[in-house]
Amino acid sequence: MMNSEPRRKQSKKTGLLPGSLVYTGAQALPTQISLLRYDAEHFELFENLTVDSAIESVGQSTVNWLIINGFENIEALEKLGTHFGIPALILEDIFNVQHMPKVEDNGNSLFITLKSLSLKSKGKEIEAEQISLFLGANILITFQEKPSQLFDSIIERLQAGKGKGRSRQEDFLAYLLIDHIVDQYYLLLDNSEEQIEKLEQMLLKSPTDELAFLFLDFKKNLSLMRKTIYPLKEEIRYLSREDTEIIQPITRQHLSDIHDHLSHIIQSLDSYREMISAMMDLLLANNSNRMNSIMKTLTLVSTIFIPLTFAAGIYGMNFKYMPELEWKLGYPIFLFLMLCAGLGMYIYMKRKRWF
Amino acid sequence: MMNSEPRRKQSKKTGLLPGSLVYTGAQALPTQISLLRYDAEHFELFENLTVDSAIESVGQSTVNWLIINGFENIEALEKLGTHFGIPALILEDIFNVQHMPKVEDNGNSLFITLKSLSLKSKGKEIEAEQISLFLGANILITFQEKPSQLFDSIIERLQAGKGKGRSRQEDFLAYLLIDHIVDQYYLLLDNSEEQIEKLEQMLLKSPTDELAFLFLDFKKNLSLMRKTIYPLKEEIRYLSREDTEIIQPITRQHLSDIHDHLSHIIQSLDSYREMISAMMDLLLANNSNRMNSIMKTLTLVSTIFIPLTFAAGIYGMNFKYMPELEWKLGYPIFLFLMLCAGLGMYIYMKRKRWF
Amino acid sequence: MMNSEPRRKQSKKTGLLPGSLVYTGAQALPTQISLLRYDAEHFELFENLTVDSAIESVGQSTVNWLIINGFENIEALEKLGTHFGIPALILEDIFNVQHMPKVEDNGNSLFITLKSLSLKSKGKEIEAEQISLFLGANILITFQEKPSQLFDSIIERLQAGKGKGRSRQEDFLAYLLIDHIVDQYYLLLDNSEEQIEKLEQMLLKSPTDELAFLFLDFKKNLSLMRKTIYPLKEEIRYLSREDTEIIQPITRQHLSDIHDHLSHIIQSLDSYREMISAMMDLLLANNSNRMNSIMKTLTLVSTIFIPLTFAAGIYGMNFKYMPELEWKLGYPIFLFLMLCAGLGMYIYMKRKRWF
Amino acid sequence: MMNSEPRRKQSKKTGLLPGSLVYTGAQALPTQISLLRYDAEHFELFENLTVDSAIESVGQSTVNWLIINGFENIEALEKLGTHFGIPALILEDIFNVQHMPKVEDNGNSLFITLKSLSLKSKGKEIEAEQISLFLGANILITFQEKPSQLFDSIIERLQAGKGKGRSRQEDFLAYLLIDHIVDQYYLLLDNSEEQIEKLEQMLLKSPTDELAFLFLDFKKNLSLMRKTIYPLKEEIRYLSREDTEIIQPITRQHLSDIHDHLSHIIQSLDSYREMISAMMDLLLANNSNRMNSIMKTLTLVSTIFIPLTFAAGIYGMNFKYMPELEWKLGYPIFLFLMLCAGLGMYIYMKRKRWF
Amino acid sequence: MMNSEPRRKQSKKTGLLPGSLVYTGAQALPTQISLLRYDAEHFELFENLTVDSAIESVGQSTVNWLIINGFENIEALEKLGTHFGIPALILEDIFNVQHMPKVEDNGNSLFITLKSLSLKSKGKEIEAEQISLFLGANILITFQEKPSQLFDSIIERLQAGKGKGRSRQEDFLAYLLIDHIVDQYYLLLDNSEEQIEKLEQMLLKSPTDELAFLFLDFKKNLSLMRKTIYPLKEEIRYLSREDTEIIQPITRQHLSDIHDHLSHIIQSLDSYREMISAMMDLLLANNSNRMNSIMKTLTLVSTIFIPLTFAAGIYGMNFKYMPELEWKLGYPIFLFLMLCAGLGMYIYMKRKRWF
Repeated sequence: MMNSEPRRKQSKKTGLLPGSLVYTGAQALPTQISLLRYDAEHFELFENLTVDSAIESVGQSTVNWLIINGFENIEALEKLGTHFGIPALILEDIFNVQHMPKVEDNGNSLFITLKSLSLKSKGKEIEAEQISLFLGANILITFQEKPSQLFDSIIERLQAGKGKGRSRQEDFLAYLLIDHIVDQYYLLLDNSEEQIEKLEQMLLKSPTDELAFLFLDFKKNLSLMRKTIYPLKEEIRYLSREDTEIIQPITRQHLSDIHDHLSHIIQSLDSYREMISAMMDLLLANNSNRMNSIMKTLTLVSTIFIPLTFAAGIYGMNFKYMPELEWKLGYPIFLFLMLCAGLGMYIYMKRKRWF
Repeated sequence: MMNSEPRRKQSKKTGLLPGSLVYTGAQALPTQISLLRYDAEHFELFENLTVDSAIESVGQSTVNWLIINGFENIEALEKLGTHFGIPALILEDIFNVQHMPKVEDNGNSLFITLKSLSLKSKGKEIEAEQISLFLGANILITFQEKPSQLFDSIIERLQAGKGKGRSRQEDFLAYLLIDHIVDQYYLLLDNSEEQIEKLEQMLLKSPTDELAFLFLDFKKNLSLMRKTIYPLKEEIRYLSREDTEIIQPITRQHLSDIHDHLSHIIQSLDSYREMISAMMDLLLANNSNRMNSIMKTLTLVSTIFIPLTFAAGIYGMNFKYMPELEWKLGYPIFLFLMLCAGLGMYIYMKRKRWF
Repeated sequence: MMNSEPRRKQSKKTGLLPGSLVYTGAQALPTQISLLRYDAEHFELFENLTVDSAIESVGQSTVNWLIINGFENIEALEKLGTHFGIPALILEDIFNVQHMPKVEDNGNSLFITLKSLSLKSKGKEIEAEQISLFLGANILITFQEKPSQLFDSIIERLQAGKGKGRSRQEDFLAYLLIDHIVDQYYLLLDNSEEQIEKLEQMLLKSPTDELAFLFLDFKKNLSLMRKTIYPLKEEIRYLSREDTEIIQPITRQHLSDIHDHLSHIIQSLDSYREMISAMMDLLLANNSNRMNSIMKTLTLVSTIFIPLTFAAGIYGMNFKYMPELEWKLGYPIFLFLMLCAGLGMYIYMKRKRWF
Repeated sequence: MMNSEPRRKQSKKTGLLPGSLVYTGAQALPTQISLLRYDAEHFELFENLTVDSAIESVGQSTVNWLIINGFENIEALEKLGTHFGIPALILEDIFNVQHMPKVEDNGNSLFITLKSLSLKSKGKEIEAEQISLFLGANILITFQEKPSQLFDSIIERLQAGKGKGRSRQEDFLAYLLIDHIVDQYYLLLDNSEEQIEKLEQMLLKSPTDELAFLFLDFKKNLSLMRKTIYPLKEEIRYLSREDTEIIQPITRQHLSDIHDHLSHIIQSLDSYREMISAMMDLLLANNSNRMNSIMKTLTLVSTIFIPLTFAAGIYGMNFKYMPELEWKLGYPIFLFLMLCAGLGMYIYMKRKRWF
Repeated sequence: MMNSEPRRKQSKKTGLLPGSLVYTGAQALPTQISLLRYDAEHFELFENLTVDSAIESVGQSTVNWLIINGFENIEALEKLGTHFGIPALILEDIFNVQHMPKVEDNGNSLFITLKSLSLKSKGKEIEAEQISLFLGANILITFQEKPSQLFDSIIERLQAGKGKGRSRQEDFLAYLLIDHIVDQYYLLLDNSEEQIEKLEQMLLKSPTDELAFLFLDFKKNLSLMRKTIYPLKEEIRYLSREDTEIIQPITRQHLSDIHDHLSHIIQSLDSYREMISAMMDLLLANNSNRMNSIMKTLTLVSTIFIPLTFAAGIYGMNFKYMPELEWKLGYPIFLFLMLCAGLGMYIYMKRKRWF
């Protein structure tokens, strides 16, 4: 559902001892390691590092952001994880890319896994990518399955600006990343609102049967978004309320802001969902109404003409002795009576308010 | 949905560093600053102040109410906010006019954002305007997107009366404003009740297909109201229960009263919603009933006349040797038999209680 | 909904300073004040008191029950309220006759507002009347909009009996009144059960389209009852659990009993509601079944006779050269074939289990 | 609903002073008192006791079980209740046979009221009988409306066995009784499962319209069972968790077991309920499918033969100058064209996948 | 439902004294006892033990896993249970194979009962088998109804590997077993996703009436899975949070991981369920659409040809004096008019957008 690429078996890990590191995605991409090192005055970006060079390059007094893409070289990543104190169970969660959003607080380190959502190229389906953040002493490590431009704008702004962002610690950087991912959700929300307005107009203009399928597709997207965003909201709320050693009070306030945004998104999704249900009801009502009006026409025509046809049939019979047939005015009288009967029928039905 | 003006992109803030002050509404209006200064004996209203003159005019021993309309001059407002100790994150919330109702208690100051609801000129759609209250030491500041007459009656009553209202502190003034906004909700509630009665009568008199669309529109309004009012209720409840430094016990009792009102409104909205669902069911049942009665007529007519037509068709055939055709009484006998068949059919159907 | 009298605007209080005493009902009736004074040995009833005489007549060592009907003279009532220590906000709630049931514990006094429910004269609609009880030191004051016979039986029993009731305090008297109101709910419950059985029989005997409207009316009544009773249940539960100074332990046990009753009522209402939904489903199913059987008849008749009519039409054509017409046995053969065709059709449809 | 005997007015107690002992059932039966007295070595059963002889017969060092059937002699029972310390409010609950299951812990005594459920003789309707247990110091008293064989098997086993049951206290005996009643629920559960399988097969074989009514009846039974069992579950859970003086730890563990059973029953009832809803949906779908196939036949026949009949009608007209009538091959050509038209129509509809 | 073998009466235990050990399954299989004994260096597997030899073989310093299949010899198992300190009530739960998943913490021992789920050979129905784990001092005992290969892979891996698994205690072994069972759930989840995709394609390609039955079957499976997995999730959560003496902190973390997996499964099941509902709606909509298009054809044909047939019938009448019949151009004019009428009708309906 979440991905039309070679489907990921959710049971890929079945039959392994727990703690085994297994990438559960479709196809592992080459591992790329970059390091961003900055403080209020300095800013350095190292690319294509090996695990060893990455470990060496981490600065003591700067903010360190280790960016990891691609999970092909699991052994190297395990080594790296061990060096920076990532617990084995958390490493497992990082490579299990179908994990639900969650936050795990280990006292002196913090692990956050969440999904970034974006529209696929064709524009209707939603793609989810898992992003994991490990916030340790003096370092933030992010893990992604594929190289992406997702955080480019943040890197650029950090490089350019010397303001608030640069003088804060890793916890604030983590907040910046989460905030950026949540901003992506807003793009999807806008897209959803556009789509719902389009669907509403289609419903008003041409309530055809294909709409039901469009409604279903839209509902699926909403459901996927809710499924991805709701647990994140709960986790962020936890972070913003609890006293975590590793998150400073000011960052906590910012996280509380993110929680507000996520609440707003969830609420909007729920109201879209409701609206879609209401529109589905309308579509069904509309269909049954059109059916009604079709049946009315059928009934009108049949009720008027079937009896008349019988009457005409009578005078088409070949009985020898049918006095009416000999009358001079037989034909005009018949026509007149038929007209009366038809009109009478029509008026009767009008009175019953069928038309 | 909430606004048919140029649609506000919910993602307007995407790509900005958090803490940036951005107005998320459609079009920023010029900033207007007024100050109301009163105590039990005095009452002064200053209009068209600049930020500096506003800061200077605030009295030491009086109640101060700073009224701000229009968010064009964000820098000036930021300066004002800084002077009166409004945290940056709260300033951000003030300018984000799609924020959900919330209360934030910062120990020695209190921030409340909520929506006033009113009917649009055409009378069917509901318009929501965000109103933010900042209650600091010795001052109440209100923020609105547009100039409005919303609080005029309160200002007048304060000016006129020398009673309770004038001798209380800013927290009571804040309560007065919230109470006034909640009173607006009651106007909408009355309007909803009128509409529901109208819809009920339409359902009884002429259950046409357009009703379904009216039901949907009404449901949308109810949903918007609930979405706006429910979080406010929860927040007010928090205010009325918790020990906040800045709200005096007597005001807390009044807030508890507001909470009762909001509960009542929510309950009414929920019962309206239920009623609309029941009416929708009735409409569908009604449609299917009309369909039934139409089909019955069709069946009655067809079942009687189609066989008769066949019989007439038989005696219209041109076979050489059809003895009945030669009978003297052939025609009258035929007519008589047809009459019997028709009547028999009719009685059979009557007995089966179809009609 | 709750009242077919001149509709009460829920917004009547809009635009007033809070704390203003306003009667929100349709039409204020003249204020009548009575006082009941009794202990185990004595029993006195004073009627048509003024506020001053009422205040004077209150006994020191007896149980005092001040009965107030009609809210025309709000100033007098305010004076009375002030004398007996009724807080202003509670006075406001008393005159707001659309208030939801609630209990307010002020330490040394207790305020309870609830609704008595009764069937209107015509017997289908439910009428709600607000009754407020203020339990202060040494006095119980009850407030009603209209004079009524509701509590007459209690007064009589108090006058007659010298038993338990007479030797208890005001809190027990309050319990007696609430218990009596809850007993009224049982009358409505019985009525509802009767109605539901009647509706069930109507559904079985003559499932006509009007039933749907009766179901809706019934559902509305259930909904009104639930809305009125549920909050009361919660409040009574609070009273029976919490340590309130003014309610003695023994009365608390009795209140716990009332809570049981209210739970039972709510549960019954919910099961009635469920049953009505199930019956509505059955009605719809029934309608669609009747529709089916009507359509079957139409199809049976049409499927048999329309082709036969075509066949008869063929031999009614006037082509010069139609050999069959000349055959001696043409007519009987035709009739026989038609009979076969008709029977074949009928058997085919029987086999397909349509009939 | 629960009883087709003379309906019990739920309002029977309306208008009485609280604490009045009133039997709310249909018809009070003569009061019968028995006493069971046993310990590990002895076992005695006394029948047809008077209140006084019952009180005298209670043993000091044995387990005492007082069995009371029939509530005709309320005064005697009141006397008995007073002697064994049953509070007045609890006596009231015992005689109110429509009371919901509940547990009341009075410190040194425990009151439990619940319902035994059984199938009525005809086998479809469920009958509920109220059973009340009062567990006091050194005695267990059970109250039932009617004499029944319900506990006979327990008495026999107690008489026969010398095992665990005989050497335990009254609290264990109470547990035995409750467990026995819960076992009865399992019988009903089995019966329900049988019925649901029967209904499922009926749905597959002959989905007639009567099934809907059977579904409704079944749903009512499920609803009655749930209503009776759910509150009991909650109460038993309370008993098994809280520290009650009168229940020994080992009995508490057994009660926890009963709670597991009741949870299982509730869960099964809920899944039956769900299944019935799904089956109802299927039935509706099935009906609409049959309707569809009937309509298809009607359409097939009408669409083919109505135009053909018109064509035949044309050549049955009596216009003087109709050249085709004179053609030698007119008739065969006509027949051939008709055949083509009919086949063409049929193929067209086949292609559209209507059949 | 859960089993098509001879149905297990849920009431099998009715009428027995509580604490009696009764196997509630269909047919008890011979009891087989095996023992696995290992530590980091050693690994021994004993098969076909008697109770006595099993008790003797348990090692002091090794991990002991006693595997029991088949419940025929209940006495022997009771003896074994008594030796290892299994409380009687828990033994009862073990043999009651319809017990819901639960965890019971007795301080120094822990009892867990859960279900393994697998697809039956035919591949559509789900089979549940109860597995009970008793974790005592120095021993883990597992109970299964039937011999199975379920844990073979774990035994093999324990035999092969010398790693983490072998050096941990019994609590970790218990975790391994539970984890393995949860892995089986993932296999079912994958199967469900495949099925849902298949159903979706069937819905798009050939939305026949049989789909509704397939939907129902699928829904039943989902419901069974949820019913089995949800309580387990809750219990595992309890285990992973509470401080249990017998479970070490590191195992607790692993259990928390299992809880995450179970949450994910439940969430997926819920989203499948939702999707099935949406697809059912689509199927219904689709059916009603096909019905509509069939009705349209019927109406089109009838509305055009029934009036025309009447017209033809008129000129088939045998009145003596019908002037039109004598006209030279009577026939062509008639045909032309009929064509016009038919076309007009057709265009009218096209305009009304019926086709």
